Amino acid sequence: MNSLEDRIEAAPQDFRVLTGDRPTGPLHLGHYFGTLRNRVRLQRRGVDMFVIVADYQVLTDRDVAERLGETVDGLLLDYLAAGLDPDATTVFTHSAVPALNQLLLPFLSLVSVPELQRNPTVKDEIQHSRQSSVSGLMFTYPVHQAADILFCKGNLVPVGQDQMPHIEVTRTVARRFNERYGPVFPVPEGLLSIAPVLPGTDGRKMSKSRGNAIALSSTPDETARLIKSATTDADRTISYDPERRPGVSGLVQLAALCLDREPDDVAAEIGDAGSAALKRTVTEAVNEFLAPMRERRAAYAQDLGFVRDLLRRGNARANEFADQTLQEVRVAMGTVY
Amino acid sequence: MNSLEDRIEAAPQDFRVLTGDRPTGPLHLGHYFGTLRNRVRLQRRGVDMFVIVADYQVLTDRDVAERLGETVDGLLLDYLAAGLDPDATTVFTHSAVPALNQLLLPFLSLVSVPELQRNPTVKDEIQHSRQSSVSGLMFTYPVHQAADILFCKGNLVPVGQDQMPHIEVTRTVARRFNERYGPVFPVPEGLLSIAPVLPGTDGRKMSKSRGNAIALSSTPDETARLIKSATTDADRTISYDPERRPGVSGLVQLAALCLDREPDDVAAEIGDAGSAALKRTVTEAVNEFLAPMRERRAAYAQDLGFVRDLLRRGNARANEFADQTLQEVRVAMGTVY
Repeated sequence: MNSLEDRIEAAPQDFRVLTGDRPTGPLHLGHYFGTLRNRVRLQRRGVDMFVIVADYQVLTDRDVAERLGETVDGLLLDYLAAGLDPDATTVFTHSAVPALNQLLLPFLSLVSVPELQRNPTVKDEIQHSRQSSVSGLMFTYPVHQAADILFCKGNLVPVGQDQMPHIEVTRTVARRFNERYGPVFPVPEGLLSIAPVLPGTDGRKMSKSRGNAIALSSTPDETARLIKSATTDADRTISYDPERRPGVSGLVQLAALCLDREPDDVAAEIGDAGSAALKRTVTEAVNEFLAPMRERRAAYAQDLGFVRDLLRRGNARANEFADQTLQEVRVAMGTVY
Repeated sequence: MNSLEDRIEAAPQDFRVLTGDRPTGPLHLGHYFGTLRNRVRLQRRGVDMFVIVADYQVLTDRDVAERLGETVDGLLLDYLAAGLDPDATTVFTHSAVPALNQLLLPFLSLVSVPELQRNPTVKDEIQHSRQSSVSGLMFTYPVHQAADILFCKGNLVPVGQDQMPHIEVTRTVARRFNERYGPVFPVPEGLLSIAPVLPGTDGRKMSKSRGNAIALSSTPDETARLIKSATTDADRTISYDPERRPGVSGLVQLAALCLDREPDDVAAEIGDAGSAALKRTVTEAVNEFLAPMRERRAAYAQDLGFVRDLLRRGNARANEFADQTLQEVRVAMGTVY
C-alpha cells in the first residue's frame, strides 16, 4: 500500500473518483481485471464514484458510431454484472451534460497548441487512428477529459502507467484556472493501478478486434469454444513462462486470476497433463468466475427499463454537479452579468 | 443589390442572422459604419436577429478579461444607442448557453487539425496575438463560431471581405454534419457588407487601442477635443484624396458618412477655408449624428435593470433554441438512450 491508498482507506468520504469507458463494444475479462475490479473495490471502500460513458469520444476514431444505443445498453449491463452498485455509482454520458462540455471552452484557453501537440497520449492516438488525419476532437481530448474529471470535482483518477500524461493535463488545467480566477478545482491525483496485462486466447493482448477476448457477456459455451481454440504449444509440461511460452502462459494467468491463485501454482497442479487439461482447467475457472456476473447480467437484462433509468438518474446527478460547478466558474471568471 | 439582398427583401422571415462582438471595450463610429448600421438595417427589414456577446472569446488574446461586467453593460448600451430594438433582437452571451457550447464537441470531430491550421483567420489571429503561443481556444475558434451560428440555425451572417473563410468553416461543418447524420443544419450564407474602412483621427484605421476612435458613448466635448487634435496637413484647400492626404481625407469621409453625403461634395463645400474649418464641420456633423444615440444611451443608462434584463431575456431565448437544436443533434447522432 502506498500512502494514497492509506489515505483512501482512512477517509474514503474525502475522495471522488472519475473513471469511465468509450462505448466501443462489450467489456471483456481484460477490462475486468484491468479496471472494473478496481472500481468495485473503490466503491466498496465508500468513495463517491462517477463513471462516464464517453459517447462523444467514440467519434474521435470512428467515422460513424453505429448502433451506439445498443452498445451503451450492453456497457451498462456489463457494469452491473461486474458489481457496480446502481445506488452508489453515478453513470452518465458526455452527450447528456452540457455544462460539463461548456467547461471545455475556458479550459482550452489555459492550454497552448504546442502543449496539445506534445501530449504523448494524443501522439499515440494519432499513431493508432484509422483516420487519415487527426480531428479537432481528438486533438483536444485531453482537455475534454479535464472537464470530465473537474466538473464533479473528482480528485482521484484510476490510471494505468501510460495514462499519467492525461492526468497531467487535467492537473495543469486545474492549477492554472485556480491561479488565474481563484480556487475552484481540486488538483486530482492519479491512482496508479498495477493491473496485469491479460493476454487473449492467442497470447496477444486481449482485444475485441483481435477476436481473442472473453466478453463478460459471453455464454459458457462460447467461452469453452474460444478457450479450446487458444494457441498453445507441443510441450506437455505446463509452466508459467510468458516470455518463451506466451500462449500457454496466458491461459495459466487467466485461470490464476479467476481462481485468485499464483500462476506458478496453477501450472504446477496441471503438471505434464498437457494443453487439453490446461484448457479444461481454464474453462472451468473462467465459467465459474463469470457465473455470478452472468446471473446478474441476465436478471438486469430482463429489466432494461431499470438499466436505462440508472443512466437517467446518473445524468440527472451529473447535471446537478455540472450546473453547480459551471456557476462557480462563471462567478470566478466574472461572467455573471 | 445582389440576388441575396433581393431574397432578403422579398422574404425577410426566411432569414435568421447571427452576428456579434467580443466584449473588449466601447464601440466606436468605425463599428457603427462597419457593422452596427447594417444590423439595424436588417432588423428593420424584419429578419430574426441574434447578437452574440462572445465573452469566452475574450480569453483568446487577453490573459485576464478584466472588468468584463462593466464592458458588457457598455456594449449593451451601445447596441441600444445604435438602434437595436430590444423587442426584435436576441442578445446573449457565450457563457450563458451550455447547449450551444456543447455543439463544439461533435463539430470538432468534423474538422481536421490541418484544416484548423490552414484557416487564414486563425493564422491572422496568431500573428496579431499578444501571447507567446496560441491557446487551444484560439486554435479552435472557427469551430466555436460554427456552433454560434448553427445553434440557432442562423442562415445569414454579415461578414467583411476578410471574414469569408470563417463562414467557410461553418458551411463545411454544417454540410459534413448533415451528410453524416442527416439534415439538421442550414448551410449559412455570408452577406458581404461593403463597409468603408473608417480612418481614425490620425488617418489610420479607427481603433480604441490607437486612441484615434470616437466612441458612441463619447460626450460632445470629448468628440470636439479628439477631432481638434486630428492630424491634418498644411494645404488650406480641402480635398478628398485618401492616398496622398490620409489625415484630411479621413476627416472628410467621417463628415460625409455622418451627413450621408459624398466626400467630394463635403470637401468642395469647405474649399480653401483650411483645416480649422474642416474640423468645425466634422465636429458639428459627428455631434449632430451622435445626438440621438447619446439621448437613447442616457435614457437606457438610467435603467440598467432593463438593460441587463434584455440580456437575461436574450439568454433565455438563446437557451431555448440551443436546447432544441441539441436535442435534434442527439437524435440524429443516436445518443438518446
